[in-house]
Amino acid sequence: SCNTSVPLCPVSSEDDPEQELLCIFGTGDLGRSLGQRLIQAGYRLVYGSRRPHSCGPLPPGTQVATSHEAAAQSAQLIFLCVHREHYDFLESLTPQLKGKVVVDVSNNLKRDLYPEANAEHLQRLIPGAHVVKAFNTLSAWALQNGPSDANRQVYLCGNRTEAKQAVAETATKLGFTVVDRGSLSAARELEDSPLQLFPDWRLPMRLTVGLTAFFFLYVVIRDVIYAYVEQRKDISFRIMVSLANKVFPIVSLIMLSLCYLPGIMAACLQLSRGTKYKRFPDWLDRWMLCRKQLGLVSLAFASLHVLYTLIIPIRYYVRYRLAAITISQIRENKTTAFDTTMAWRTDSYYSMGVLGFGLFLLLGISSLPSVSNILSWREFSFIQSKLGYLTLFICTFHTYLYGWDKFLHLASYKWFTPPSYMLCLIVPSAVLLLKMLLLLPCVDKRLTRIRQGWERADPEDGTRKSLLT
Amino acid sequence: SCNTSVPLCPVSSEDDPEQELLCIFGTGDLGRSLGQRLIQAGYRLVYGSRRPHSCGPLPPGTQVATSHEAAAQSAQLIFLCVHREHYDFLESLTPQLKGKVVVDVSNNLKRDLYPEANAEHLQRLIPGAHVVKAFNTLSAWALQNGPSDANRQVYLCGNRTEAKQAVAETATKLGFTVVDRGSLSAARELEDSPLQLFPDWRLPMRLTVGLTAFFFLYVVIRDVIYAYVEQRKDISFRIMVSLANKVFPIVSLIMLSLCYLPGIMAACLQLSRGTKYKRFPDWLDRWMLCRKQLGLVSLAFASLHVLYTLIIPIRYYVRYRLAAITISQIRENKTTAFDTTMAWRTDSYYSMGVLGFGLFLLLGISSLPSVSNILSWREFSFIQSKLGYLTLFICTFHTYLYGWDKFLHLASYKWFTPPSYMLCLIVPSAVLLLKMLLLLPCVDKRLTRIRQGWERADPEDGTRKSLLT
Amino acid sequence: SCNTSVPLCPVSSEDDPEQELLCIFGTGDLGRSLGQRLIQAGYRLVYGSRRPHSCGPLPPGTQVATSHEAAAQSAQLIFLCVHREHYDFLESLTPQLKGKVVVDVSNNLKRDLYPEANAEHLQRLIPGAHVVKAFNTLSAWALQNGPSDANRQVYLCGNRTEAKQAVAETATKLGFTVVDRGSLSAARELEDSPLQLFPDWRLPMRLTVGLTAFFFLYVVIRDVIYAYVEQRKDISFRIMVSLANKVFPIVSLIMLSLCYLPGIMAACLQLSRGTKYKRFPDWLDRWMLCRKQLGLVSLAFASLHVLYTLIIPIRYYVRYRLAAITISQIRENKTTAFDTTMAWRTDSYYSMGVLGFGLFLLLGISSLPSVSNILSWREFSFIQSKLGYLTLFICTFHTYLYGWDKFLHLASYKWFTPPSYMLCLIVPSAVLLLKMLLLLPCVDKRLTRIRQGWERADPEDGTRKSLLT
Repeated sequence: SCNTSVPLCPVSSEDDPEQELLCIFGTGDLGRSLGQRLIQAGYRLVYGSRRPHSCGPLPPGTQVATSHEAAAQSAQLIFLCVHREHYDFLESLTPQLKGKVVVDVSNNLKRDLYPEANAEHLQRLIPGAHVVKAFNTLSAWALQNGPSDANRQVYLCGNRTEAKQAVAETATKLGFTVVDRGSLSAARELEDSPLQLFPDWRLPMRLTVGLTAFFFLYVVIRDVIYAYVEQRKDISFRIMVSLANKVFPIVSLIMLSLCYLPGIMAACLQLSRGTKYKRFPDWLDRWMLCRKQLGLVSLAFASLHVLYTLIIPIRYYVRYRLAAITISQIRENKTTAFDTTMAWRTDSYYSMGVLGFGLFLLLGISSLPSVSNILSWREFSFIQSKLGYLTLFICTFHTYLYGWDKFLHLASYKWFTPPSYMLCLIVPSAVLLLKMLLLLPCVDKRLTRIRQGWERADPEDGTRKSLLT
Repeated sequence: SCNTSVPLCPVSSEDDPEQELLCIFGTGDLGRSLGQRLIQAGYRLVYGSRRPHSCGPLPPGTQVATSHEAAAQSAQLIFLCVHREHYDFLESLTPQLKGKVVVDVSNNLKRDLYPEANAEHLQRLIPGAHVVKAFNTLSAWALQNGPSDANRQVYLCGNRTEAKQAVAETATKLGFTVVDRGSLSAARELEDSPLQLFPDWRLPMRLTVGLTAFFFLYVVIRDVIYAYVEQRKDISFRIMVSLANKVFPIVSLIMLSLCYLPGIMAACLQLSRGTKYKRFPDWLDRWMLCRKQLGLVSLAFASLHVLYTLIIPIRYYVRYRLAAITISQIRENKTTAFDTTMAWRTDSYYSMGVLGFGLFLLLGISSLPSVSNILSWREFSFIQSKLGYLTLFICTFHTYLYGWDKFLHLASYKWFTPPSYMLCLIVPSAVLLLKMLLLLPCVDKRLTRIRQGWERADPEDGTRKSLLT
Repeated sequence: SCNTSVPLCPVSSEDDPEQELLCIFGTGDLGRSLGQRLIQAGYRLVYGSRRPHSCGPLPPGTQVATSHEAAAQSAQLIFLCVHREHYDFLESLTPQLKGKVVVDVSNNLKRDLYPEANAEHLQRLIPGAHVVKAFNTLSAWALQNGPSDANRQVYLCGNRTEAKQAVAETATKLGFTVVDRGSLSAARELEDSPLQLFPDWRLPMRLTVGLTAFFFLYVVIRDVIYAYVEQRKDISFRIMVSLANKVFPIVSLIMLSLCYLPGIMAACLQLSRGTKYKRFPDWLDRWMLCRKQLGLVSLAFASLHVLYTLIIPIRYYVRYRLAAITISQIRENKTTAFDTTMAWRTDSYYSMGVLGFGLFLLLGISSLPSVSNILSWREFSFIQSKLGYLTLFICTFHTYLYGWDKFLHLASYKWFTPPSYMLCLIVPSAVLLLKMLLLLPCVDKRLTRIRQGWERADPEDGTRKSLLT
């Protein structure tokens, strides 16, 4: 099943750019997929294989060289589609690979299997060649069929600019966009990338699951089980919508305030230390790095809260209860007067909710990569901090309006536990209070100076407040 | 109305980068627009024209050379703003154009008018020049006034890196971002691009229109016409909201399941063929390539369904009916008991709808180009397949809950036709069932091995499951 | 607190790319932040300082040279982290800086403080050096800690390609993406960028605030104050939701029509002038440039309108009123007949609203940078103009359906003022009418020819209708 196997002479590829000859080492799946695509893009192709006479079916139009040496000599650009553990055979090819561009497309099955990135290991094996790490972040499907949604960009790195340009030219011809990630020391990062599954989301996700589970249990106990134990009433059907619509906004508000808490903690630390150059503790660093994720989860839960709120009037239970109230009013011939305070309160409550959600959506949109890219950092920080605190304030206010004076009524404290909305107000209230303290002119002035790096850096020249010396 | 026409000496542009001299061949609209912008960006400009003494008004500060030869000689970079059918005059300029960068900005009025791309044809005419295809994807407005929304990127291609760099430098100076599309063989693609109007959306759009029309007719007949014929009741007003709110979710669910059906078909084909290297039939390939569009249409219709559902309680008809029910209950002195099963069922139904829509929105957001670009393909495929199937499952479940036990009641089958929601459950149920079969360990294992390319490629070494050899 | 201060010999950085030596002039906050990051990225670093023996604490592992001369001589790439007003000392370093790459990272505190960009001023001071403007658009935080949301891209400009490449390589190694903005003449733009806070949004924002304030006052007077004066009723609680839900859609519709008015005005101007090459008046140019912002504000207000509308049925006031109506119907033993016209009208009204909002969302999504980038300009203009006018039409129709025949009733004109919805229909109706006139074949044909630049440019050859000559 092998293609014709002939020794090949080195071919100058400069005369006809349409017919450049490339070489692939390795006839496994990756070598085959990549080869098929290269052939389609108009390249000529030669394979190097350990068993040139017994390799599997290869793309039509390709050849298998009699030896790795012959294959290496024939082309300027060599794709290495071989597992890292088989790299050793390359050492014997050192003379043939001298000055050649060798593209390492390999990935490992796990992170940290080896002390060194595959590409860096490779460069040490064949110091005369110009190793470029590339294509490894693409799926095998994209390598075979060209770019698709998450496979548009080819990341590459390498120590030699000309080598990178040659690989970039090929990637461009295959339809990909090239992103240069610098020297070969970036190879590790590129090799880790395809193995990762939302590493930044792990901490926020755990927090979300924890908080959601806790508050779900809390409201189930206080509402459903309490009603069953104390009044023998089965209101378990409320779990699906009513209780969900308690848990989602609670978790959302807490997560939103947790976005802003680490910033406040950092400011307090800087104030107490009197410098910005000392590192924060690790947990604070990690927390600050996942603020965006916390905010996005919070927005998702806020959106669910909005949807759950808006379906209230079409629920069977709500319609039944409203009709029952009307009917009982008629049967008992009562008339309830219109309560203007109630109208003000509930309308304000809803209005704050709508405005808070609107601002929250704006925050979410501005954190889309393409939107934040076109913002200057002054604009971005204006949206994320000024508008962010406004959002937190409005949403907290919305929750206070929801509670109104319930905290005064003993009946709210079933089994001596506070209503869930009270619990969720603790963190946001603390954050807003601390932020207000930090905005006091005397505190703010000191913090600003610390953040400009002036406090200690140049004490004898403290009059000039500026970033540059 | 012509500018001063003087013979020009070749000018070295290296001393003062602010005052580089460029040349434009052609004094039509495109030449004028581009020239105006180049002058604004600080370039000096000379025009080459067939009729140097009778050309129209040109941007102030520009000159018209006495001949094409003189113009060509004066600058290193020449923009060709001339129709392809007039390219022939360039052959006589071969000596003057040798080594010059000639930028082909032309577009054709239709696709496939010529066997060869304009730029490739041009390169054959003047082989000594370095032809670069660029700027043709911009609107004339953007050429004259600088970048705006869909006109930020200048795509270019050409065989010579230095020539491309020179053009890129100019494009950057005009405020554009440059995207290198490789060698001149990409010119065809660039020339086709401005002529296309959503080519990927044609098939999904036809499908959408077809399905929407069919189901609209179906529900109009079963609801409005049936009521009129059998009960002499005119309920045609229901078309605007009630029937729309039946058609949109039905089409949405079918479209969503059609996103996942081709993947399942492909898996079955691969299983039965025992290899992944054989090409799929053309219709399956086309279908797989428009999955994203199918999904987006489905999301749009799901959004409309949500909005139509949420306005239910403010509709006049609904308010009238609810009041009528309450009034009749009082007049007939009946009391309906609260039905807990009904409450569970409808709340679950709504809850599934909300969660399904939330997940669907997440899928939509992750398919925004800037979001999918920052995802690794493992992350992207996790969202699009794992979360995608979960979305399909929840939405299908939502529809089953909506139907509940209606399928048992003969009254549902007006004129012996099943309710529309039953029709729309066929495809999603089949997709979910097949997917479950494919997830059976024995099937899944075999499919995984086929997709790693191992089955046939290296039978004697089947123990190692990996992508590379 | 100073690091060891030793004279340094020039170091060749080519042997070991991991250990390249860079130089930073200036030990202020910016110099320290940048230095810390460079050290982390594996560079060696030497500082040049005015007071080498009394500078503040510097990143561990760095050195301070005994003099600027020694520092300049030691490295090929020098970061200038010094205020513009202190640039003068560089003149004396001319011999040491010859051929070196000097990176200007400075920003000014205000725009237009100096007649010349800092980087251009610097290049004039040290003509032998290759000045590159870069890194100034990043926040100090990003310089110290690496890329984050709005700080992923490093914009750079300079006259020398090799110098830019050297800086780009360093930026890439720090994890940033590089965007080349061309020659040093772009420095001014880069220096203005970090100072700006939504400059394109100023005009639309002022307009929004003005219109919102006017209409808010208008409806407060006509609704709340009128009711209080004429009927002694306090309905001020309606401000929070009902009146907000009048103001938002009104301003939204007006803003949407203001997006399309300038295009129509431009067309009229072009028709009356008979050419497209004459510049528009300044106010029209400015107006046309902020159409996107007008549209986005309009979309935001439309979204608020949708949310405010959807919470109607859960409002206390609405529930109270609906129950009151039902109760009074029963007590007075009246039966109101179902009004089919009313059902048609309100359902159409809501349906138009939903469809209009859906299309509006589509317009908004297509104006996300990453989406508009993948659209060809033909596709983009199809969406923004064809679908845009359709959206405007549907939304205007929605408003007409809302008004229905109220304009015939004298009671609508409280205190002789028209209802607010009538006021907001003026501009959109005019825009739609004018657009229809422009679409008349005779007018459209003339306009198309003018826009192709043919009318005056080449009168003797008017038969060929094309963009190129």
